[in-house]
Amino acid sequence: MADISIKFPDGKVKAFPAGSSAADVAKSISISLAKEAVAAKFNGKLVDYLAPLSDDGSIEIVTKKDAEGLAVLRNTTAALLRIALKKAFPAIRLGEVSADEDGFYVDTDKDDQQVSADELDSLAVIVEKLVSDKLDIKRISLSKDDALASVKGDQYSSELIKAIDGDEVSFLQIGEYQVLSDGAQLVNTGDVKHFKFLSVAGAYWQGKSSNPMLQRIYGTAFYNQADLDEDLKKRQEARERDHRVIGNQLDLFFVDPKVGAGLPYWMPNGATIRRVIERYIIDKEVANGYQHVYTPVLANLDLYKQSGHWAHYREDMFPPMDMGDGEELELRPMNCPSHIQIYNHHIRSYRELPMRIAELGMMHRYEKSGALSGLQRVREMTLNDGHTFVAPDQIQEEFKSILRLMVKVYDDFDIKDYTFRLSYRDPKNTEKYFDDDEMWNKAQAMLKGAMDELGFDYVEAEGEAAFYGPKLDVQTKTALGNEETLSTIQLDFMMPERFDLHYVGADGEEHRPVMIHRGLVSTMERFVAYLTEIYKGAFPTWLAPKQVTIIPVSEQKNGAYADKLAAELKAADVRVNVDKRGEKMGYLIRDAQTHKIPYTLVVGDDEMNNGSVSVRKYGEEDSVSESSDAFVKQVLADIASYSRDADAEESAVEQKLEN
Amino acid sequence: MADISIKFPDGKVKAFPAGSSAADVAKSISISLAKEAVAAKFNGKLVDYLAPLSDDGSIEIVTKKDAEGLAVLRNTTAALLRIALKKAFPAIRLGEVSADEDGFYVDTDKDDQQVSADELDSLAVIVEKLVSDKLDIKRISLSKDDALASVKGDQYSSELIKAIDGDEVSFLQIGEYQVLSDGAQLVNTGDVKHFKFLSVAGAYWQGKSSNPMLQRIYGTAFYNQADLDEDLKKRQEARERDHRVIGNQLDLFFVDPKVGAGLPYWMPNGATIRRVIERYIIDKEVANGYQHVYTPVLANLDLYKQSGHWAHYREDMFPPMDMGDGEELELRPMNCPSHIQIYNHHIRSYRELPMRIAELGMMHRYEKSGALSGLQRVREMTLNDGHTFVAPDQIQEEFKSILRLMVKVYDDFDIKDYTFRLSYRDPKNTEKYFDDDEMWNKAQAMLKGAMDELGFDYVEAEGEAAFYGPKLDVQTKTALGNEETLSTIQLDFMMPERFDLHYVGADGEEHRPVMIHRGLVSTMERFVAYLTEIYKGAFPTWLAPKQVTIIPVSEQKNGAYADKLAAELKAADVRVNVDKRGEKMGYLIRDAQTHKIPYTLVVGDDEMNNGSVSVRKYGEEDSVSESSDAFVKQVLADIASYSRDADAEESAVEQKLEN
Repeated sequence: MADISIKFPDGKVKAFPAGSSAADVAKSISISLAKEAVAAKFNGKLVDYLAPLSDDGSIEIVTKKDAEGLAVLRNTTAALLRIALKKAFPAIRLGEVSADEDGFYVDTDKDDQQVSADELDSLAVIVEKLVSDKLDIKRISLSKDDALASVKGDQYSSELIKAIDGDEVSFLQIGEYQVLSDGAQLVNTGDVKHFKFLSVAGAYWQGKSSNPMLQRIYGTAFYNQADLDEDLKKRQEARERDHRVIGNQLDLFFVDPKVGAGLPYWMPNGATIRRVIERYIIDKEVANGYQHVYTPVLANLDLYKQSGHWAHYREDMFPPMDMGDGEELELRPMNCPSHIQIYNHHIRSYRELPMRIAELGMMHRYEKSGALSGLQRVREMTLNDGHTFVAPDQIQEEFKSILRLMVKVYDDFDIKDYTFRLSYRDPKNTEKYFDDDEMWNKAQAMLKGAMDELGFDYVEAEGEAAFYGPKLDVQTKTALGNEETLSTIQLDFMMPERFDLHYVGADGEEHRPVMIHRGLVSTMERFVAYLTEIYKGAFPTWLAPKQVTIIPVSEQKNGAYADKLAAELKAADVRVNVDKRGEKMGYLIRDAQTHKIPYTLVVGDDEMNNGSVSVRKYGEEDSVSESSDAFVKQVLADIASYSRDADAEESAVEQKLEN
Repeated sequence: MADISIKFPDGKVKAFPAGSSAADVAKSISISLAKEAVAAKFNGKLVDYLAPLSDDGSIEIVTKKDAEGLAVLRNTTAALLRIALKKAFPAIRLGEVSADEDGFYVDTDKDDQQVSADELDSLAVIVEKLVSDKLDIKRISLSKDDALASVKGDQYSSELIKAIDGDEVSFLQIGEYQVLSDGAQLVNTGDVKHFKFLSVAGAYWQGKSSNPMLQRIYGTAFYNQADLDEDLKKRQEARERDHRVIGNQLDLFFVDPKVGAGLPYWMPNGATIRRVIERYIIDKEVANGYQHVYTPVLANLDLYKQSGHWAHYREDMFPPMDMGDGEELELRPMNCPSHIQIYNHHIRSYRELPMRIAELGMMHRYEKSGALSGLQRVREMTLNDGHTFVAPDQIQEEFKSILRLMVKVYDDFDIKDYTFRLSYRDPKNTEKYFDDDEMWNKAQAMLKGAMDELGFDYVEAEGEAAFYGPKLDVQTKTALGNEETLSTIQLDFMMPERFDLHYVGADGEEHRPVMIHRGLVSTMERFVAYLTEIYKGAFPTWLAPKQVTIIPVSEQKNGAYADKLAAELKAADVRVNVDKRGEKMGYLIRDAQTHKIPYTLVVGDDEMNNGSVSVRKYGEEDSVSESSDAFVKQVLADIASYSRDADAEESAVEQKLEN
């Protein structure tokens, strides 16, 4: 037999007999490597550990520590799940299988009665038996006809086989079972020790909504129990923070794809949170010199042609509506052209600058339906938007003023986990950017200067600026680990040109302002999703949909006292209800905790006679008795403080802002 | 010559020689009638007073007191204006003419330099000469060719002549002048004594925006000076109240038809008023048990097919947007289907009823561009909308609860000029209405019962109900005299059927709720337009965009004191500014009055030394000196009282609501 020459990652080349496997290669390197190896990448392609290599090529041994090593384990776990499903439900039909760094899934169709989450444990028992049997996993080749015969009655597997090129179909022989193969596999079932079948959810066959809905079984697997435990803990944590899960538990919002994907309905609880945030942010902005406006969500398409959105942003825009007479109306994708209309409605003087226009501006963006997620990614959104029109020499001061406001707002919401990123143009590629060297250099220096003066840490990203100006982004992470931009301050030299904006300077001449786009808390949708996740649904008192619930021990005897207390609290603008459902006390208290209501008051005869309340704060085990007057004061102070420790606030943020 | 037989309005018939005129007929009745007569309606058609009548027919003599009599006068005034225009500007071209109960207009095109408002007086002088000349007005007939020759070079008149059926064109011969005739005319120019040319505005030729823009000259005329004077006073009053005029003066909003007809931009001043109203109404509703929500302005068109809007209301809806994959999204024309989504998101229990869902809901309606007017008639609007879901036996109590809230709100806005109208189905035509006799009878009785219990006056309108249920409308008038619906409470038996709504009753069975649509203050757009008109722009302090302006006598000396005062007021949430423009005191005070700012404070050395302010309230001539503390208290009390006399409030409304 001829030799083949195998190249290692370090560039060395060695000859092996043709038909040698990755296992042979690994053993030739070291026993310890062979022990950890589970597959190989041969000429960039993942191959079975025992697959015979017949050509020259470069090799990388894949071990249990590599991401690909995990994918191999999960491929095999998925294959074992398919065997278990066939054993448990002989008539079941099996669709697509996928395995990656997040885990794996198997699509199933059991007709009348679908696979339920309850059945996952018994499936795991079957797989555990396959594992403890330590069965060899062998690759076999079937003719297409034999392969189709082996999946007779399963139209999904049949379709998958028919879609394979050539007449040979690769299967796995695992003990007595034959399974359609998906990617590189382990050598023996004995290595699949640490796995978990996680959940079941609907998924359309091949992802098309016109196809039948299958049941997708999700799972994961690791090479050791510690990794599995950590992953399960993370998943649990993410699930506990997932705003879609909490949104459902706390009845904050829902999306009905039939009525409109990406178009959330805010239920009263969610709407209350949003309203408090909206009023808070408008009041803050007005106090900081912003002039709030309302501008229409529709405009003639010409406006977005002039702004450049139609040329550069069209794929994210909704289709224009033809109104006849050549009039085309467009749902706005951004609010800047609207605020330019406000600026341009009068001749502006330098005395009016910086001119700060703000709005809770509703916009529409056509996100792909696959990208939509709860309140985080939607098609209709209301942005906490603002545009400041400044003279060029005001950039640095205005930038500082926006930053100061921004971190005060973060502080009020107790947001701490964020980083600043300054984006500049690429100095080696200036022709990619708005053509005004002096403006860029000055503006970038002003942004950096402002950050330094305020003493904020930041990273600098050359080449990350937009065409029309440098920017600052504030980055955070969602519960699911995705990076997200919470706020942005964006200089814009271009829009003022496109819309020929002016102000009359002290010299009586016309000058061109610079525009600063800024969002403090992004869209109401995204911000509430974000807050839901960082608070795990336990909203601080000032934001909580219900702030206080009062439970009378006996409605008959103590109901009137509870009502009187509630009226007092209501008059002080506290969101309070009296729980008169008459269920058992323990149940009602637990229910208040489940709904994460900040204060639960229990009032019985003692409280009634003393004019007191028994107060249990959310998350605490014990109740405290206090006078009702003291409680009213306490809850009002809590609301006014945004539920933070007043001293902590002083020290951390205020200090920075003195610069 | 044969006789013709003429029938009088009282049914009597009399013979006259053929060729007799209305004048002959009038004289045969009475001399006094003949003196007042100016034309006649012959077989329902308005004819000249001296036109020969050649056929049998019925006649009504039109006198100076009739509306048609005014139209005749205005026709002739318009004809004299056309002569005057030709005399003053021989090259002018003349378009359409119209005369009705509101006045008359003549469209003109003078090319380079259009007719200006300044020239109206000199045109009036020319007309006065024609009047004092007491010229006979004779009807003559020209062949179409002669008629066209007589207006050579005037394409508008030519087009008007070409559009006339037949080959004969009716002209007037007035002295030496020939004028194209429009409708019935006076006999002599001497009767056109009391007229006024009012204004000039642009108008498209034949109302089409693709046609050239002409100058439309508006005027009016009466048979006596007293009527003219009264009309001019009313016009002045309407102009002073017109929210479009005030909106411009106070910089409340603007509409730019190029960017979008009927799509207003709310400038900071208007936006402030709107924001205060929005917060007020939400707080009132929440305090009254409404659950506020946010729902999307877009939905799948199917939702509006199910609701019936697409079948019955399509012409007022925007065109659907085709998103591909068969998905059509529609801008909602009403919010009810959205609130039904909220109701239907959970199984509802009788314990939750009445369930009150409310929203400041943005909607879009495709009004014809000719119908659009400022904020009053727009294409994008935000409705103070609410839907209550009730058990059938709760209708009367819920109706009362809504009414109570409504009149409290009216009272806070000082709205007094309104009437209630109850609309029932037509009892003789029940098949035109939702088919449930018992429901109609009960519901109508409940509505009436509630009105009676509350002691409100109302009119009953049989046959005015909608298909789906009886309703109450609250009617007001705009500054321009148009009747408008300010609020509405509308029962709906149909939507709950269409969307198969249920609640679980005390009996454990499913029942059908009744839906009540209600709007307290209509749309934000219409309501602000209405308030602007009733207040003449002098908004009560709680609504005023700027509540206090402080003018330092010397900025250098008193500026710091002014700033300190402003900071104090701002901290108390008062909208205040310090006017540091440094103009003359008199100018600044006048300017504050022009902008209808409720309080103007002047602070000089005296005030600074005494800790006092010199206060001038809007509309008052004199200033009052008081301590700054007293002023802060005063303005806060003013805001909290909605600028009403607190005692008056108690007596008027509260009393009624005790029922």
